[in-house]
Amino acid sequence: MPAYQTTYRVIYGDTDNMGYGYYANYLRWFEIGRAEMLRSWGLSYKMIETQGIFLPASEARCKYMHPVKYDDLLIIETSIDTSFKGAVKFDYRIRSEDGQKIHAVGFTKHACIDRNGKVVRPPRFLMEIIEKNTETE
Amino acid sequence: MPAYQTTYRVIYGDTDNMGYGYYANYLRWFEIGRAEMLRSWGLSYKMIETQGIFLPASEARCKYMHPVKYDDLLIIETSIDTSFKGAVKFDYRIRSEDGQKIHAVGFTKHACIDRNGKVVRPPRFLMEIIEKNTETE
Amino acid sequence: MPAYQTTYRVIYGDTDNMGYGYYANYLRWFEIGRAEMLRSWGLSYKMIETQGIFLPASEARCKYMHPVKYDDLLIIETSIDTSFKGAVKFDYRIRSEDGQKIHAVGFTKHACIDRNGKVVRPPRFLMEIIEKNTETE
Amino acid sequence: MPAYQTTYRVIYGDTDNMGYGYYANYLRWFEIGRAEMLRSWGLSYKMIETQGIFLPASEARCKYMHPVKYDDLLIIETSIDTSFKGAVKFDYRIRSEDGQKIHAVGFTKHACIDRNGKVVRPPRFLMEIIEKNTETE
Repeated sequence: MPAYQTTYRVIYGDTDNMGYGYYANYLRWFEIGRAEMLRSWGLSYKMIETQGIFLPASEARCKYMHPVKYDDLLIIETSIDTSFKGAVKFDYRIRSEDGQKIHAVGFTKHACIDRNGKVVRPPRFLMEIIEKNTETE
Repeated sequence: MPAYQTTYRVIYGDTDNMGYGYYANYLRWFEIGRAEMLRSWGLSYKMIETQGIFLPASEARCKYMHPVKYDDLLIIETSIDTSFKGAVKFDYRIRSEDGQKIHAVGFTKHACIDRNGKVVRPPRFLMEIIEKNTETE
Repeated sequence: MPAYQTTYRVIYGDTDNMGYGYYANYLRWFEIGRAEMLRSWGLSYKMIETQGIFLPASEARCKYMHPVKYDDLLIIETSIDTSFKGAVKFDYRIRSEDGQKIHAVGFTKHACIDRNGKVVRPPRFLMEIIEKNTETE
Repeated sequence: MPAYQTTYRVIYGDTDNMGYGYYANYLRWFEIGRAEMLRSWGLSYKMIETQGIFLPASEARCKYMHPVKYDDLLIIETSIDTSFKGAVKFDYRIRSEDGQKIHAVGFTKHACIDRNGKVVRPPRFLMEIIEKNTETE
């Protein structure tokens, strides 16, 4: 599938002593990527929660290729790995503003839980929107 | 009252591009100060919440005197400003490990709200513990 | 002066146990406000640093009026308090997307230091851009 | 090797809307784990940097098993994966205070770079300390 793109401007609070973006913050940028992709599909994560469904991360991975610097405008590319069965897996790629540099790649896997924290299968409304927006590949 | 002291080790994730502790993180360290002071009084903030009482910050202020660096061991001094009527006000002072340098001073004011977000007067159990631990000064 | 406006979408990582935006994060949003205002004037904070000038916060204050929730789109209004002599003072107001609610107001004061951490007077190029963009009041 | 143990108290600022520790913060806790393990070996990460050596993360992975809650006292277990050749790999396990629950497991890989950002082989003083403290397995 073509990755959904959104941007993020690195602030001072994201950087560290080395002058780079702190490694944990990439997971914040991944969150922005998946949240905005879902929003572009007409489904905000907040709407999912109002259905009593939560998608806590069950796994996160990030490979850091080129450091991100203060004031960089990041291009966050997000897609869904439809080959992953069981809950939802997002893939991410963080590029530089000019698109030339790949700062990082990674993924997050998310379980579906209900209000009581019980793991449930992804609800139909969620799977349908995912299928509708990924089927053409 | 003699200030309650606790310590915090500055990690890479707390620092910024300038090599200093990022200015917003001082409010995290203030939280550690007030939480540990209450705990030392036998009252964890978590216990307060189980009583249906929450203490969101209504105001925060920090004066930054000497920058904090990576790996610094901070001494967080916390006390309660008993002259403040209405909810609770904590005063803070962040010192260097050797006690010589004052990195910052500040305060936070907190309202008391119930589960519905309605402002309520500080519950007796909270005021009694505060009085008990501040009266002798 | 008319305040400069920029927006920020509250992410999960900004929220806390209470379901509100964590109080320290408002200072991150203040940073976004002043950085984007300077950028709109053709002067990125990064450019200031390349001149060997840094503007660490000497003081920060925030009054919290209405809690910010997950996924809220915040309007960050920033202006410069030209009545403040000595370095630079920014005023902030964080509004709700519809402009109706004021979530918080605050300010930050910044000292000017050189590469050696020595306090210096605000350089001409900085003061000129500030005057040029605030003189109409 | 027996894992090095250190603890961390989850603060409000670490939690999110779901009442859990935000997933990115686990990488902050991993940093605490490796920094304190090195310190226990008499080698602070700060000392490594004074030698002109930096260890930026080249990869990070975390599997989230049981959510961390506000005020939890986490046990962070850290060890070095000596089977990993090329730079340094740390393994982590985050347990509950009673040791019964495993909240998360993960690892971070770190490259060695010099002041110019050039990748270099791990310096002898670093490898010797690692070997000295891991050889007994």
